[in-house]
Amino acid sequence: MADGARRRRAGGGGAARRAERTAVVRNTAKVIDRLIPTLDLLDEEALERIEDAAELVLEEIGVNFVDNPAALQRWRDAGADVQGERVHFPRGLTRTLCATAPREFTQLARNPDKSVVIGGDRLVLAPVYGPPFVLDLDGKRRYATISDFHDFVKLGQMTPWLHHSGGTVCEPTDIPANKRHLDMLLAHMTLSDKPFMGSVTEPERALHSVEMCEILFGADTVAQNTVMTSLVNINSPLTFDSTMMGALETYAAAGQASIVSPFIVGGAMSPVTVAGTLVQVLAEVQVAIAYSQLIRPGAPVIFGAFVTSIDMNSGAPIFGTPEASQVIYGAGQLARRLAVPFRSGGSFTGSKLPDAQAGYETANSLNTALLAGVNFMLHACGWLEGGLVASPEKFVMDADQLGALHRLAQKPAMDDVALALDAIREVGPGGHFLGCAHTQAHFKTAFWRSGVLDYRPFETWEDAGAPDTRTLANAKARQMLADYQPPDLDPAIREALDAYITKRKAEVADAFA
Amino acid sequence: MADGARRRRAGGGGAARRAERTAVVRNTAKVIDRLIPTLDLLDEEALERIEDAAELVLEEIGVNFVDNPAALQRWRDAGADVQGERVHFPRGLTRTLCATAPREFTQLARNPDKSVVIGGDRLVLAPVYGPPFVLDLDGKRRYATISDFHDFVKLGQMTPWLHHSGGTVCEPTDIPANKRHLDMLLAHMTLSDKPFMGSVTEPERALHSVEMCEILFGADTVAQNTVMTSLVNINSPLTFDSTMMGALETYAAAGQASIVSPFIVGGAMSPVTVAGTLVQVLAEVQVAIAYSQLIRPGAPVIFGAFVTSIDMNSGAPIFGTPEASQVIYGAGQLARRLAVPFRSGGSFTGSKLPDAQAGYETANSLNTALLAGVNFMLHACGWLEGGLVASPEKFVMDADQLGALHRLAQKPAMDDVALALDAIREVGPGGHFLGCAHTQAHFKTAFWRSGVLDYRPFETWEDAGAPDTRTLANAKARQMLADYQPPDLDPAIREALDAYITKRKAEVADAFA
Repeated sequence: MADGARRRRAGGGGAARRAERTAVVRNTAKVIDRLIPTLDLLDEEALERIEDAAELVLEEIGVNFVDNPAALQRWRDAGADVQGERVHFPRGLTRTLCATAPREFTQLARNPDKSVVIGGDRLVLAPVYGPPFVLDLDGKRRYATISDFHDFVKLGQMTPWLHHSGGTVCEPTDIPANKRHLDMLLAHMTLSDKPFMGSVTEPERALHSVEMCEILFGADTVAQNTVMTSLVNINSPLTFDSTMMGALETYAAAGQASIVSPFIVGGAMSPVTVAGTLVQVLAEVQVAIAYSQLIRPGAPVIFGAFVTSIDMNSGAPIFGTPEASQVIYGAGQLARRLAVPFRSGGSFTGSKLPDAQAGYETANSLNTALLAGVNFMLHACGWLEGGLVASPEKFVMDADQLGALHRLAQKPAMDDVALALDAIREVGPGGHFLGCAHTQAHFKTAFWRSGVLDYRPFETWEDAGAPDTRTLANAKARQMLADYQPPDLDPAIREALDAYITKRKAEVADAFA
Repeated sequence: MADGARRRRAGGGGAARRAERTAVVRNTAKVIDRLIPTLDLLDEEALERIEDAAELVLEEIGVNFVDNPAALQRWRDAGADVQGERVHFPRGLTRTLCATAPREFTQLARNPDKSVVIGGDRLVLAPVYGPPFVLDLDGKRRYATISDFHDFVKLGQMTPWLHHSGGTVCEPTDIPANKRHLDMLLAHMTLSDKPFMGSVTEPERALHSVEMCEILFGADTVAQNTVMTSLVNINSPLTFDSTMMGALETYAAAGQASIVSPFIVGGAMSPVTVAGTLVQVLAEVQVAIAYSQLIRPGAPVIFGAFVTSIDMNSGAPIFGTPEASQVIYGAGQLARRLAVPFRSGGSFTGSKLPDAQAGYETANSLNTALLAGVNFMLHACGWLEGGLVASPEKFVMDADQLGALHRLAQKPAMDDVALALDAIREVGPGGHFLGCAHTQAHFKTAFWRSGVLDYRPFETWEDAGAPDTRTLANAKARQMLADYQPPDLDPAIREALDAYITKRKAEVADAFA
């Protein structure tokens, strides 16, 4: 597993770039191959202060592993000081344990062309995760259903700039809480052929996820490869509950990837400062990664950081803010020093509508994530109202911007053709480049072009009804859903998945809480 | 002048930071003091290739100085090869001439607290420039008037995050074209006490601008200081017309600053590639800066780059695009190597409305400008519809985001208070930071908070009429205009300005073309 996880991708940057070029004809870009520098906000001294302070937190203050005697025993065996549920770590212990976590790993998709490499200089994009509500295409804000869930998976499958189908793209609240993970997985497995995430809401559901993958991929493939990346939140501050840790244990033991992710609104779940939040994030992530390596050395794991700031007037979390960006830049540097993949960023906004606020806040977050060196961006499109709401309109608008991120991640060419001296010579002072040979040869691929935003002159746009971005995105989302075609799937596999779900559902009574 | 221009600011970063802190009580932040790294997209080899290619363009292809025999003579005297209106420059000539241009300079405001230092690690923000139309607060798109102009100057004066009052914040089309520069200057001089820009539409109007400044500041002060920074566009490709160069000549001779700025829609006025555009931008800017130094060595001048890409489907310029960002990053590096202040970026969008498109595109542009090391950002707020339209709603929305840029330009503190170990100790695993002593001590200043965007819970927001960002900004703009108070001005100066304008207006007949 460890070797598999560390496997270098075949083909390298060239393959990714080829995949990206073909993306304009509606294939999926394989991943973003980042060829640009990261913005390293913090200097060496600042990073060392944070790392030192995190060690001090782990040694002096410690963390709680709640309702999890097996975890406490594992920590005792590893040399930690366990008092009740509190675990104190000798300086350096967690960091040393992190060393077996792979720097990068491959997550298989059932369509091998869509398998992704997570880590290094790559960026993998996945959609919004978790909203209980939708703002639907009729403009109604309501509880999400499995039908909405299907629509988001379809939109994800149709979007060339999403590499990953994600997980709980919305909560299908019309399905019993103790059974919906089965329907969610089935949707990702059948309506999409991109990689996806497993369930984390109970350790048993993680096991179901693994078993469904064994049907989809074959048991041998699952045993030898990573086929799921799942989201394991940490209960900040410094608390590791048995539900999330149970899922982590199940996945790590099966060689499946987890994103271990402090979920922090600064000032509430962490100190009100950027530095203090980074100290706590690093301490928490080090413990979780180390714990995954106690379960199985080499298990693939991602350094997660969901962090935003708080509006001290209302207590509401706020998004796209400078302090959130500062934390993401810093956390990216800390993750690279720990030599593990980094998850952060997303299409974050507190707006209730896909309006200008949503645009500003989301663009702030997406740009920061790219430049912070994020390797896995959950919530990359579709997020609204602080994550309470998933929006198909916002999904389409954000996904379009993800296309721009692909371009921005590349370095501009600097060869003779790009330097274009012949064109400047041909056109000369006072001339026009539109008709020159160089422009004619390159204009089709030269510039990124939005598939949603409006570039028409005012009069043409006014004659078309003066649509705002939300209106344009609504039409685009409807068109994508109308055009959607499911990817091929072996009918025998589909039958086996259905049978598995029927069996599992029959085992327990419905529960909605 | 040269010494004055090179004068180191007094007070340094500490003063700027103090000014910024007080900005929350509605003073104006002095400038942004950039404490974060720039994103250096291009490596040394790429930069050298561009610089080499620019020299080749200047030597082999040359530029045209149109209808300007005096300029041609100056170039002949400086050692250039002049054939008709075409000027060819021996390799290295323009770059050598650029060396006397100051690395940074101070532009005085009539309120000395609002004087700005342009260059180095600072960022000065100025509002939108040039739109003939407004989208007014009643939602009507129409030709701009002097009354709109006054409103934008008032909004700028009221905005704590704008350091500069700008120039043609909109075209007052109800005033004759040959006289409106007088009314525009009067508005900046009387309704604002921030620094401003002079007229460039005729060399004579530049002279009027200097004369009005002599009334406002006193002739000695104008002779010894920079009191205007004006926008001198270059007619790309490679053409320097006598109108703009005439303004440059007037301003440089008077020791007043010019932004020399190629105005480029890539693929139309420059090659369709990022590298080719950078070659042309650098060649053009080197000529213009060198020319300013021929007029007066040490004259303050800014390396400008207004560059965006083109939609090859419609021919329309498009904004907030990855290629525009790549050019800005690269141009920033080239400007720093030339050791002159850099102007680029802005609240750019092609959207016809202050909607999500406007939010995405503007945020992309603003973030890029900060990280590209821009020193002077014209169009920092209020731009709509590709610059055809100025919008008070967008002005207010953008200006709010400029507040976030101020924060983002700072490095997070890393001292013991910021690291917050005592807070983490006090709260412990599973606790809550909202009530702890550290949070109570710092929450008021810890996080940036928007003054426009909506942070209310859904229900509260819905009860308030479910306003979108545009609606909120509309109310904010109306409130700011209602609250506006003109800054004090010596009545004798006001009288002299009025008399000057009356005299100048009487000299010529009205002309609207």
